[in-house]
Amino acid sequence: MAGDGSDQRALQYEQTLMYGRYTQELGVFAKEEAARLRESEQRRSVRDRTRTLDLLEYEKGRCAKCRRSGYPYVLEAPAQDFVSVCTVRCQKFLISRVGEDWIFLILLGLVMALVSWVMDFCIAICLQAQKWMYGGLDSNMFLQYLAWVTYPVVLITFSAGFTQILAPQAVGSGIPEMKTILRGVVLKEYLTFKTFVAKVIGLTCALGSGMPLGKEGPFVHVASLCAALLSKFMSLFGGIYEEPSLVGIKDLIGTKNESRNIEMLAAACAVGVGCCFAAPIGGVLFSIEVTSTFFAVRNYWRGFFAATFSAFIFRVLAVWNRDEETITALFKTNFRLDFPFDLQELPAFAVVGIASGFGGALFVYLNRQFVLFMRKQKAINKFLMKKRLLFPAVVTLVISSLTFPPGFGQFMAGQLTQKETLVTFFDNLTWAKQGISHEFDYMGYSQAWRHPQINVFIMLVLFIIMKFWMSALATTIPVPCGAFMPVFVIGAAFGRLVGESMAAWFPDGINTDGTIYPIVPGGYAVVGAAALSGAVTHTVSTAVIVFELTGQISHILPVMIAVILANAVAQSLQPSLYDSIIRIKKLPYLPELGWGHHEKYNIRVEDIMVRDVRYITLNCCYRDLHNVLLTGNLKTLALVESAESMILLGSIERAQLQSLLSQQLSRARRLEYIRQRSVVEKKHLSEVSNPSSEDGNQRASQEVRFQISTEESSFSPARPVSQKPLKPALKRSSVMERSIEIPTSPHDNSGIALKSLFCASRDTEGLEDDGDLEDDMTIREIAEWEEKQLDEQVNFNNCKIDPAPFQLVERTSLHKTHTIFSLLGLDHAYVTSIGRLIGVVSLKELRKAIEGSVNVKGVKVRPPLASFRDSGPTGSSSSESEATELHKLWDRHRSVSLPREHVPSESDEKSQ
Amino acid sequence: MAGDGSDQRALQYEQTLMYGRYTQELGVFAKEEAARLRESEQRRSVRDRTRTLDLLEYEKGRCAKCRRSGYPYVLEAPAQDFVSVCTVRCQKFLISRVGEDWIFLILLGLVMALVSWVMDFCIAICLQAQKWMYGGLDSNMFLQYLAWVTYPVVLITFSAGFTQILAPQAVGSGIPEMKTILRGVVLKEYLTFKTFVAKVIGLTCALGSGMPLGKEGPFVHVASLCAALLSKFMSLFGGIYEEPSLVGIKDLIGTKNESRNIEMLAAACAVGVGCCFAAPIGGVLFSIEVTSTFFAVRNYWRGFFAATFSAFIFRVLAVWNRDEETITALFKTNFRLDFPFDLQELPAFAVVGIASGFGGALFVYLNRQFVLFMRKQKAINKFLMKKRLLFPAVVTLVISSLTFPPGFGQFMAGQLTQKETLVTFFDNLTWAKQGISHEFDYMGYSQAWRHPQINVFIMLVLFIIMKFWMSALATTIPVPCGAFMPVFVIGAAFGRLVGESMAAWFPDGINTDGTIYPIVPGGYAVVGAAALSGAVTHTVSTAVIVFELTGQISHILPVMIAVILANAVAQSLQPSLYDSIIRIKKLPYLPELGWGHHEKYNIRVEDIMVRDVRYITLNCCYRDLHNVLLTGNLKTLALVESAESMILLGSIERAQLQSLLSQQLSRARRLEYIRQRSVVEKKHLSEVSNPSSEDGNQRASQEVRFQISTEESSFSPARPVSQKPLKPALKRSSVMERSIEIPTSPHDNSGIALKSLFCASRDTEGLEDDGDLEDDMTIREIAEWEEKQLDEQVNFNNCKIDPAPFQLVERTSLHKTHTIFSLLGLDHAYVTSIGRLIGVVSLKELRKAIEGSVNVKGVKVRPPLASFRDSGPTGSSSSESEATELHKLWDRHRSVSLPREHVPSESDEKSQ
Repeated sequence: MAGDGSDQRALQYEQTLMYGRYTQELGVFAKEEAARLRESEQRRSVRDRTRTLDLLEYEKGRCAKCRRSGYPYVLEAPAQDFVSVCTVRCQKFLISRVGEDWIFLILLGLVMALVSWVMDFCIAICLQAQKWMYGGLDSNMFLQYLAWVTYPVVLITFSAGFTQILAPQAVGSGIPEMKTILRGVVLKEYLTFKTFVAKVIGLTCALGSGMPLGKEGPFVHVASLCAALLSKFMSLFGGIYEEPSLVGIKDLIGTKNESRNIEMLAAACAVGVGCCFAAPIGGVLFSIEVTSTFFAVRNYWRGFFAATFSAFIFRVLAVWNRDEETITALFKTNFRLDFPFDLQELPAFAVVGIASGFGGALFVYLNRQFVLFMRKQKAINKFLMKKRLLFPAVVTLVISSLTFPPGFGQFMAGQLTQKETLVTFFDNLTWAKQGISHEFDYMGYSQAWRHPQINVFIMLVLFIIMKFWMSALATTIPVPCGAFMPVFVIGAAFGRLVGESMAAWFPDGINTDGTIYPIVPGGYAVVGAAALSGAVTHTVSTAVIVFELTGQISHILPVMIAVILANAVAQSLQPSLYDSIIRIKKLPYLPELGWGHHEKYNIRVEDIMVRDVRYITLNCCYRDLHNVLLTGNLKTLALVESAESMILLGSIERAQLQSLLSQQLSRARRLEYIRQRSVVEKKHLSEVSNPSSEDGNQRASQEVRFQISTEESSFSPARPVSQKPLKPALKRSSVMERSIEIPTSPHDNSGIALKSLFCASRDTEGLEDDGDLEDDMTIREIAEWEEKQLDEQVNFNNCKIDPAPFQLVERTSLHKTHTIFSLLGLDHAYVTSIGRLIGVVSLKELRKAIEGSVNVKGVKVRPPLASFRDSGPTGSSSSESEATELHKLWDRHRSVSLPREHVPSESDEKSQ
Repeated sequence: MAGDGSDQRALQYEQTLMYGRYTQELGVFAKEEAARLRESEQRRSVRDRTRTLDLLEYEKGRCAKCRRSGYPYVLEAPAQDFVSVCTVRCQKFLISRVGEDWIFLILLGLVMALVSWVMDFCIAICLQAQKWMYGGLDSNMFLQYLAWVTYPVVLITFSAGFTQILAPQAVGSGIPEMKTILRGVVLKEYLTFKTFVAKVIGLTCALGSGMPLGKEGPFVHVASLCAALLSKFMSLFGGIYEEPSLVGIKDLIGTKNESRNIEMLAAACAVGVGCCFAAPIGGVLFSIEVTSTFFAVRNYWRGFFAATFSAFIFRVLAVWNRDEETITALFKTNFRLDFPFDLQELPAFAVVGIASGFGGALFVYLNRQFVLFMRKQKAINKFLMKKRLLFPAVVTLVISSLTFPPGFGQFMAGQLTQKETLVTFFDNLTWAKQGISHEFDYMGYSQAWRHPQINVFIMLVLFIIMKFWMSALATTIPVPCGAFMPVFVIGAAFGRLVGESMAAWFPDGINTDGTIYPIVPGGYAVVGAAALSGAVTHTVSTAVIVFELTGQISHILPVMIAVILANAVAQSLQPSLYDSIIRIKKLPYLPELGWGHHEKYNIRVEDIMVRDVRYITLNCCYRDLHNVLLTGNLKTLALVESAESMILLGSIERAQLQSLLSQQLSRARRLEYIRQRSVVEKKHLSEVSNPSSEDGNQRASQEVRFQISTEESSFSPARPVSQKPLKPALKRSSVMERSIEIPTSPHDNSGIALKSLFCASRDTEGLEDDGDLEDDMTIREIAEWEEKQLDEQVNFNNCKIDPAPFQLVERTSLHKTHTIFSLLGLDHAYVTSIGRLIGVVSLKELRKAIEGSVNVKGVKVRPPLASFRDSGPTGSSSSESEATELHKLWDRHRSVSLPREHVPSESDEKSQ
């Protein structure tokens, strides 16, 4: 039910720009785009039209094959020539044995491990190069500064430019988009090869610059891209082996089945985290928490299998490269096992947790404020629009200047990379013995934390404060980057600070039993890292990730307590970072039911449903269809038995209705009418009326009338290009010019002239007329004919009807509705009362209800996050209206796809 | 939708006996039960009838309040007197702050930690007592043997007897039942206080005996019991604070909302595992894997929160009791951190995993064979039926005799308890240095593995073989017990064996780089334990459990690889232990879609649906209703517009229709009819006809006619007792006796006689007649009246109709159907074609289809588990037919509840 029409739900990228293009002037872009489209459309029109004509037939077949072609991959021809018979047998055997899943998962794990390792290798080289440059120039401070600053600026600028040009979708973390995709919405542009290349190269450069950026989020995206591409590749490969007995290789690999595809993407998300941190368990759990609402336990093994394999290969590569002696954790710690922590230290751990909760909420808030500020300030905005790469460059310049080691960087261990910093925080030694930071023996990287003037506490505080805003700012740069790792480091720093303070406070440990167990500040760092990253992402599984990262689980209880407390605090203050980005990007989402959701049980569907449902009746005529299509903009329309009974029979997609209408008014049918009429006329041998120039104009304006009428409805992005009689506005002029030619030709040649006109127009319009007939109807006649056609009753025989759209009862509670919507990934559901349609609930209403904009029993339920929502959309409304023009253009550009409409209307904005 | 009628779905315990009562003769029991029921029914009838009359009103109110009373707890009166105003304010504040969830979870965690700790304490004392007895009698071998053997026999017998008497539902693991409950089926008897007591005491005794039994499974059940009781308790407590502005305390705590209740039970399962092993993360994951099909990520934190708190308290109690110095893992290991294992050891770990997979499947098979053997062997069966406690005693005797340390026990470290054995396996030292087992320094418990004659390898092999069948046998004893821990120990032993072999093979380790890193057999034990327990339970999260149990995560990759391989092997051979028990106990279940599920995409709902749907039409008469009720046995019936249109309007529960019918033929209406007739008759002053003795008999037989006709339909367990005119068979005789009295009274007194008859029968039947009227109708008249009534058209106004039963399309794939069924916990779904009802799919059809009994396109799809299914039910079919009688009795016993019908019919059996 829920998965119907996977390709109809595609969302175009331009609706979701946040990092990518919000600095660009949309009006200018719209003009460029319009010109580009006009050109490309002319080129593509022939192909498009043919495709459109095939659409109906195709749709029928598609229905019969049960969405075999739900994904575009299948349309591509299989490559047939490069596999020997032996391989065929071998693969057949494998398929018949275990199924293809594990092969796919192994390949995915392998590829991702390689990508991760190569990327890490490149990043390490980049970072080394910077250090080497910086080190080599130590004779001249200014040159040193230039080198220190230029290097990241160049890398970030390149990354931003490269991503911008190749695939702007690669910008940012990717987890919000993956969450949306796993919710059932298809964001096609996000899973292309271009995006993959842009993401991998952009990310490598961005991380190589040494900015406080993370790898985790983008890696989730990269893994999903990888899974999508791999599945595309395997569908090519598997296409050969399709045979009756083994019905579904294509079904399996070609991802015709949407749910299967989503299962694989969920596994890919786990792989992404797993091979990024060599943390298979944490990866699986983190990806579940971050991307899913409901998780199918039967997919559990997929994630574990792929993530484990991937993590294994990732670490084996390190062993083979002689980086490690054997497989160990990435940030191996060496805390004592016999007495990891004292029971009386637990309050301190709890404090770390609670403080991290507030910190996490603040981070999310700050990050959003940076974005909103950039959007709001017209002056800055305008300036940055022109110079798109200026913003990343400036931010990088500021951040790298501040970390310049001989400058301010000396007070915050600026010379250390993120990884080195983390190693120092997880260090087993106590830096602040007896409260005096000078006396201890600094080793290796920890050297950076020694400063002659200030003690380690001040350094840590400075580090935390500076890194905090730097990370929040840096993650708004339009490059592929995540925020997990920076936050993780800040958390570790905060934990270390508390740990060092505790160690200074209790130099001999707290334990009173004689044996001295000194306090381990590294343990606090572990706890802090888990707590802060958990607070920012609203996940508990960061606890597992730190265990796997450090290779020690001895601090399990402190970590769990801190993470849970941090989550409790952060979730009550702010949405998670990913949800925040989802809202900023205006991706379709369904908010979670939060902690204190008392009132949710008391709201019923009847309170929130829209009672004025657009519907069509079984016995309606095409005029009704036309009117309904003009007024509404819903993706699907309800089909009821009659306006009196209102018995819901099913739902029909808008595109289906549009093609029904198009067919009814199609030229082919008109020609058929003409042929029949001519048969009648031939008997009468009546005179052919000479079309006057006035008539020609009338005819043109007649066609324009329809154009305008459809233009009116085109504010809905849900309109495909495929309406034949209702011609797109862009081609209006050419049609008019040719129409005017008609009167110049003599009346006995008018047939030929018309024919040549249609022959000439065929290459632009691609209409498949039979050519032998003469379209000698006047504008008036066409209008009459069309009016007559519109009065006919609709024949739904060739129409794909979803006979069981999801139905709710008036009394269904909001809680249950939310559950059903998120379980089934629904977009809307009809509310029926004993088979009678009484209302409709869509994601929008549900969202509003959950966010508390609906008054229930006179009490305005004010959710904890309301303050955010009030400020959110107002800041972005200006750019939103600008985007509408662009959307219109893009709507035209869409070929078959009918996207889920989610452009926020004015009422939507206000209600929020 | 899915959650409708939570209390209607109750399953009675007797349908699920496996461990509890399968040794008892069902025929005898049925007779006893029938006698008991007859008695109790007479006592209860008054109450029951009143309740039945209230049912309709109640149902309406219930509908309006949206299942407020979905759970019976709410019916109880709130205790109002023991809370001060201050507490009220305080609690109000807390409620308004965070919601009640966390308070509930903290309480749950606290209680469970205490229970777990106290139980562990008692078990430790029991085991010490046995050792002390055994040690004190070392002068006389025979006395020593007696003491060694008698002690467990007494404990197990007591446990079995106690459980049997108090609550037979407490027998066994409880995880299968929890899985069923979380699937949406209410097994009421499983969540009572009696069961709690029986489970806790029975489990303590069983584990105190030293048998190879586990604590984990029962603890999941105990935690769920605890959650159910706690929620009951808190609903008493919360009842006071209900006020308009804070609508839903009761809604929240009184668990009226089924989904909420299930959320809490899911959290409780996590707590159970968490506080049993002090493994919060593993607990959450294990409980998810074992009990859920789809998991709501928003419940994630509940489990983590409660399990962490519980594990924390559990370990803190140990610290306070001075058992531990600080909070550490239960089976703390001390492997080296810098080089936990060599990369070249991975094949050995993989071998452990694969072998564990086969071993796990074998264990499940063996366990099931023991149960089936006991059922099949008539002679043994009959004997054990009489002496119910003999079987546990004999099994205990055999097992404890074999482990008698001076006897065979010396070859398998018989003197060690399970916990001690595990400690020795996870030991950091290598036992077999240079292949010679004598030379090393045995410390502590490891002493037990030294034997003068045989080396440690043979001892380990003996241990594994003996414990394997012992554990499989011991878990069939009818006491509260789990199989996780014994399997865990066997796995550890197997791992240790491989590890010791590796250590003997490579005395200096495999690494060739100069540094000697000897092989750590303890690591292999960890891997083996995780792999075997993962294979038996089909879970991956045992990996996390071992990390938390041992406090070390350094072996993460070997463990993950072994667990995944073990799962792959075991899942392709056998169902999980819990699923196996579910099938043995015949609990309603939905099999998982396995690894290689190609064919699932190719089956459509139209292939499996039942086309002959029982339906009622909107304009049907009561006679149709009567016929439909007589012929079908479905829980709900479809309501269609008319037989021609077949447009589905909704579904009605059987009970609703039955009460409609009952009301139509009720005595109240008949009296009303008489009253009206008498008004008419009074005008005519006509003579009262004298009822002849023949008439009396006719009348009795008339009532019997209805009884018989309902008896015919009573093979369905879905029939409640609440039909008033259709009297239960048990009361037939008494009614007849009284009816025969009528002719003896003179005709002018017949009214009084009848009145007295009804007054007399009122205490047994509880009919609320108005008493003033005289039921002077003859049998013939009543028959005529009833016939007339049956011809009237049904008025559905007072009937609760589910207006949106779940609908599928013919072309919905099996895969999608399975997903929807498990997501929404559906029981059945209608198949419609543009609003027209064309079929119905229930859990049964779906199960059959998944298990491959349905021929699709001529090819019999044979699932991998078919071999098991063939042997399974045949062994139990004999006892099944015996159980039917019992079920009939119990059906009558059920008061309001209308259980989901799942008694396997003959066709069901065959198709399996």
